[in-house]
Amino acid sequence: MSEAVSPLASPFPALPAIAGVTPRIVRAGYKDWGRCDLTYVELIEGTAVAGVFTRNVCCSSEVELGRQNVKQGKARALVVNAGNSNAFTGYRGREAVEQIMEQVADHLGCGREEVFVSSTGVIGVPLPKDKARAGVEAALTAHPCGWEDAARTIGTTDTFPKGATASAMIGDVKVHFSAIIKGSGMIAPDMATMLGYVFTDAAVDPAFLQQCLSASADATFNCITVDSDTSTSDTVLAFATGAAGNAPLVSFESAGADAFAAALQSVCRELAHLVVKDGEGAQKFIEVAVTGAVSDASARKVGLAIANSPLVKTAIAGEDANWGRVVMAVGKAGEPADRDRLSIGFGGVWAAKDGQPLADYDEAPVAAHLKGREVRISVDLGLGQGRATVWTCDLTHGYISINADYRS
Amino acid sequence: MSEAVSPLASPFPALPAIAGVTPRIVRAGYKDWGRCDLTYVELIEGTAVAGVFTRNVCCSSEVELGRQNVKQGKARALVVNAGNSNAFTGYRGREAVEQIMEQVADHLGCGREEVFVSSTGVIGVPLPKDKARAGVEAALTAHPCGWEDAARTIGTTDTFPKGATASAMIGDVKVHFSAIIKGSGMIAPDMATMLGYVFTDAAVDPAFLQQCLSASADATFNCITVDSDTSTSDTVLAFATGAAGNAPLVSFESAGADAFAAALQSVCRELAHLVVKDGEGAQKFIEVAVTGAVSDASARKVGLAIANSPLVKTAIAGEDANWGRVVMAVGKAGEPADRDRLSIGFGGVWAAKDGQPLADYDEAPVAAHLKGREVRISVDLGLGQGRATVWTCDLTHGYISINADYRS
Repeated sequence: MSEAVSPLASPFPALPAIAGVTPRIVRAGYKDWGRCDLTYVELIEGTAVAGVFTRNVCCSSEVELGRQNVKQGKARALVVNAGNSNAFTGYRGREAVEQIMEQVADHLGCGREEVFVSSTGVIGVPLPKDKARAGVEAALTAHPCGWEDAARTIGTTDTFPKGATASAMIGDVKVHFSAIIKGSGMIAPDMATMLGYVFTDAAVDPAFLQQCLSASADATFNCITVDSDTSTSDTVLAFATGAAGNAPLVSFESAGADAFAAALQSVCRELAHLVVKDGEGAQKFIEVAVTGAVSDASARKVGLAIANSPLVKTAIAGEDANWGRVVMAVGKAGEPADRDRLSIGFGGVWAAKDGQPLADYDEAPVAAHLKGREVRISVDLGLGQGRATVWTCDLTHGYISINADYRS
Repeated sequence: MSEAVSPLASPFPALPAIAGVTPRIVRAGYKDWGRCDLTYVELIEGTAVAGVFTRNVCCSSEVELGRQNVKQGKARALVVNAGNSNAFTGYRGREAVEQIMEQVADHLGCGREEVFVSSTGVIGVPLPKDKARAGVEAALTAHPCGWEDAARTIGTTDTFPKGATASAMIGDVKVHFSAIIKGSGMIAPDMATMLGYVFTDAAVDPAFLQQCLSASADATFNCITVDSDTSTSDTVLAFATGAAGNAPLVSFESAGADAFAAALQSVCRELAHLVVKDGEGAQKFIEVAVTGAVSDASARKVGLAIANSPLVKTAIAGEDANWGRVVMAVGKAGEPADRDRLSIGFGGVWAAKDGQPLADYDEAPVAAHLKGREVRISVDLGLGQGRATVWTCDLTHGYISINADYRS
């Protein structure tokens, strides 16, 4: 963890233990940083798994194998290496991942495809097999740890550990979620990949778990941006042990499925927000709500064009209610928009309506809103019913300092 | 002009007068900045015109009218207002543009559609009609000025005036080009729109002029990026007076057409580079050359993904040969790419080949190259024959200072 904690950080929440899930951490020594860097999570037999992965074409072997293995829906273990992303390392990197899968599978007596591996950190250097082997060996029998320790151990350039929790009633059975995530942009030498893991004791069919996770990711992880750059290793996995003993969820027809899906989405949203709040150099958390688009997908594209605009992000950093930059970002999104129907507001106050600045626009409440840590931008396109909300952070000198004031 | 001149600035070149073109400048007082802010360029009868305009959906009335009027191919005058972009001003903004067109057309005895207007500066404030009327009135009879004065007058946040020149032989007739441009990103309250104007004494059919300008723009203006944001007012116009007396160019079959097109493209490339060199906060000029793509269009998309990546741009600012960030940017472009065929180099030295860091990679010459003002990034995708070159600048604290350390 870095020493300068994000001003948007919050204390680590109280995450419950999840029946059937045993996290452990050890020091594999991938990097000389005097902390644990290998997280091993054992899962009881029968655990269902679902996953969403980066769309970056130049993805790591971990992502390739995970994407392939998640299809069979079963998991017995998760291994997360911090300090080396193992990306862009060719066949040698792939061999290291396969070695870890084999080692854990041999220990648990399960299939290799039930062992999921993630790595985050320096790129272009194959994960050292000897360190991985010794680290995993130690992890298999290490004492179990708490979620905050696990959250710290999967982190690299994160400035605070990130976790979220929720519960839901499935019939008369209460199921629990504990989830951790790391990520704060994409920086080198550590590629600050987003790696998120959700654990629940609910019994869920893998296909339905995948359906819920994909839908949740679309509305959460795919609606955040720090700097428009996507990592080669981004991964979110959901594990459902079934230990709660509820009647298994197989579709939205199952009793309690809606509550389960809603709880999963709320956990994912919280994790996504935490990543933005640890965005490199972030001083403000920005919500962009787009309404009146021709479709939800169109609204999201417009929202992301705004959230990715360096000029919008620097304006917010400067506490400047610069709706002109928002107009520009709407226009460059390439989605249907009509300048003369466009309305833009900050913190619930409209600055421009129907393509023109409001004559009676009172900037005082907007200026006060922009001085806060959380800023809300509203855009109404005036065309249809499509809507989306996306989240980002401001672009500050801190981002430049972290990413440019550095020499390898 | 700002006081802190870009370190990438060059002295204004010696631009020849173009027969049939008379530039004049006056002070309309759009903004209280004690300098001329209205440029009026009179063109002789028979002048052909071609134009390329922003694709931003929220474009200004100037762009709407220009795009419409350029189709008839004839021009008698150009008016450029600096200090007020007149964008996002509804019908009142449009009326101001129409007033200017009418006033000039009445004076010259030409059609209103032969008068082209551009505006750049603060948005959301309708161009004041009274100031525009008085300014144009004065401009119609002002003394002619030189190109450097005109280049300064169309500028807003530019830190240096920008011009380019070329010549070409059409048969035994030498034709000349003088061109000016303004732009340095998109900043508020001034939207630092890119406005470029090329004047030539060649005789060229309007349709062929448009064909040449569009092709030139694709390889030059559409291959630069400062911050990925596109203005609501971007415009490049080419005017050909025909005063040189060459046999008119009507297609690439015409003698001298190739030389003309090549000269036009070289002028456009120089103008495009000058805009990048005045990029907000720019300390380095970056060329990204992509080869081995499945098509030229695909290569350009990959190149722009690299050139727009905040992480690549900050790495160059930090003089860090961070090829991992280039890998990431290639992967996120969404174009065909194969991690294991990808090669990346800096200043002509390969750092990674075929998806792996080179074992004998010597970083010393690369480090020296990155300390210079001009940085070259080479990417070979290893897939096909597609190639493109794009240009950008680095992302520095200067960009943040200009855009965030400001309150309206």
